[in-house]
Amino acid sequence: MPVCLVIGVPGVGKSTIMDVLKAKYPDKIKIVIYGDYMVDIAREEGLVRHRDEMRKLPTDVQKDLQERAADRIYRESLSFGGVVLVDTHGFIKTPNGFFPGLPERILKLLNPSFTVLIEADPEEIASRRAKDETRERDVELEDLIRLHQELNRMAAVTYATLTGCNVVIIRNEEGKIEKSAKELAKNIGVA
Amino acid sequence: MPVCLVIGVPGVGKSTIMDVLKAKYPDKIKIVIYGDYMVDIAREEGLVRHRDEMRKLPTDVQKDLQERAADRIYRESLSFGGVVLVDTHGFIKTPNGFFPGLPERILKLLNPSFTVLIEADPEEIASRRAKDETRERDVELEDLIRLHQELNRMAAVTYATLTGCNVVIIRNEEGKIEKSAKELAKNIGVA
Amino acid sequence: MPVCLVIGVPGVGKSTIMDVLKAKYPDKIKIVIYGDYMVDIAREEGLVRHRDEMRKLPTDVQKDLQERAADRIYRESLSFGGVVLVDTHGFIKTPNGFFPGLPERILKLLNPSFTVLIEADPEEIASRRAKDETRERDVELEDLIRLHQELNRMAAVTYATLTGCNVVIIRNEEGKIEKSAKELAKNIGVA
Repeated sequence: MPVCLVIGVPGVGKSTIMDVLKAKYPDKIKIVIYGDYMVDIAREEGLVRHRDEMRKLPTDVQKDLQERAADRIYRESLSFGGVVLVDTHGFIKTPNGFFPGLPERILKLLNPSFTVLIEADPEEIASRRAKDETRERDVELEDLIRLHQELNRMAAVTYATLTGCNVVIIRNEEGKIEKSAKELAKNIGVA
Repeated sequence: MPVCLVIGVPGVGKSTIMDVLKAKYPDKIKIVIYGDYMVDIAREEGLVRHRDEMRKLPTDVQKDLQERAADRIYRESLSFGGVVLVDTHGFIKTPNGFFPGLPERILKLLNPSFTVLIEADPEEIASRRAKDETRERDVELEDLIRLHQELNRMAAVTYATLTGCNVVIIRNEEGKIEKSAKELAKNIGVA
Repeated sequence: MPVCLVIGVPGVGKSTIMDVLKAKYPDKIKIVIYGDYMVDIAREEGLVRHRDEMRKLPTDVQKDLQERAADRIYRESLSFGGVVLVDTHGFIKTPNGFFPGLPERILKLLNPSFTVLIEADPEEIASRRAKDETRERDVELEDLIRLHQELNRMAAVTYATLTGCNVVIIRNEEGKIEKSAKELAKNIGVA
């Protein structure tokens, strides 16, 4: 019943891979979106009515919600017979730099067996993110994505040392989502 | 009143950027040189008279001074209304390898909100370090600078996980110090 | 009497360098193979008769053996007058991703003064690993080795922050083992 942190930059195809895995192995896989657990707990306590109100909460309250979500996810994973995939973030890009999604105290509550990095070619990710039909490459965006992926990788290594979890790196190539999902399944022991 | 660790290899322009920021926002910025605090405390206690004597102190005494400097910096930051920029080191290049400037216990005392990496092109840094007028590139030195910057970046990621601080990366391009200072100001919330 | 962790991917020449160093400085160097200590303790307690039985032990027992090996290595290093080189792993490549060889609790028991990374060109390592006489390059293997070395480097940085140890990087170029051993000796203070 391992907890498996799943990390990847926006546009890398993280959710799709998890959904494919869940469809293939419905009884063995549970997908948990970390942020949703925080919203649920905040709602239960009447702190917010809508998700949008979360960011207005004082930092201390947010930190407390973050810890309680981690604790709930870990406890739920104990009663689930398969693998709990936690959809979360290594670093989140903000106007004030890269915010660490998983500080030490949260990691130790989640007690993961795996940290999975979903990675892809920065050029492919950049073109997926582009909404318009221009075919021009955005080299600056590609550099940012490259940096973001590098920081996530470094973060995963720190998680491994702090919690003893394995690091799994899945390369999600354009149009090969089935292959990526299969490789992930094999690595985390559901296939 | 956040503590903001500022890290960069020698010759990257770290001090200059901090000075420009201090000149722009004199009331909002305080620059603290970590090593100076250690010397001050050692002097107050009669352990040394000159900075040069610091390295002769037993390792235990040096470690103790390092902790007390961290504690003093953090306490002073609480009474300062702006951002305290701590001029410090990720790794220090020594004849015995890279020495970590900020081990866990010091980080947790400093309790930073930001770790700022000042980075630049290794070729530019190497040429700034060269004292003579030769225009020949020193590729070995450039490789060393590239490695040093990479290790500092990895260190910053570890700090983020251990303390919850954001990671800000400022690219200090040759002759664009004003731009770098502006970007830093925006990221740490003083502009 | 420092503990010095020595890390490198299979085929990098780690054991050879340590043996050369031991031959040069027999009284100043002691080589400790981390895994052997675990087997020894397991044998002493009648848990296994052969090394092959180790992997069949329950995870809890393995973790306990890992801690007791670390504790024994550290205690033995205190009575040894020279440098204890601990032959160990940053990450171990497994079918379930990269397994961290040195989690936090082990690191803190070992209390190292140095983490030494033995690195080499991925192309050279790949060709050393190839058993047949083909001269064709295996680019996929090279990429894997490059990744493995990168993760080990990131791990070493985490160790430095968690334990305060220095990071020493030794480039082991093809056919220059004496040079690598000399450089290592200088860095860890035996030469």
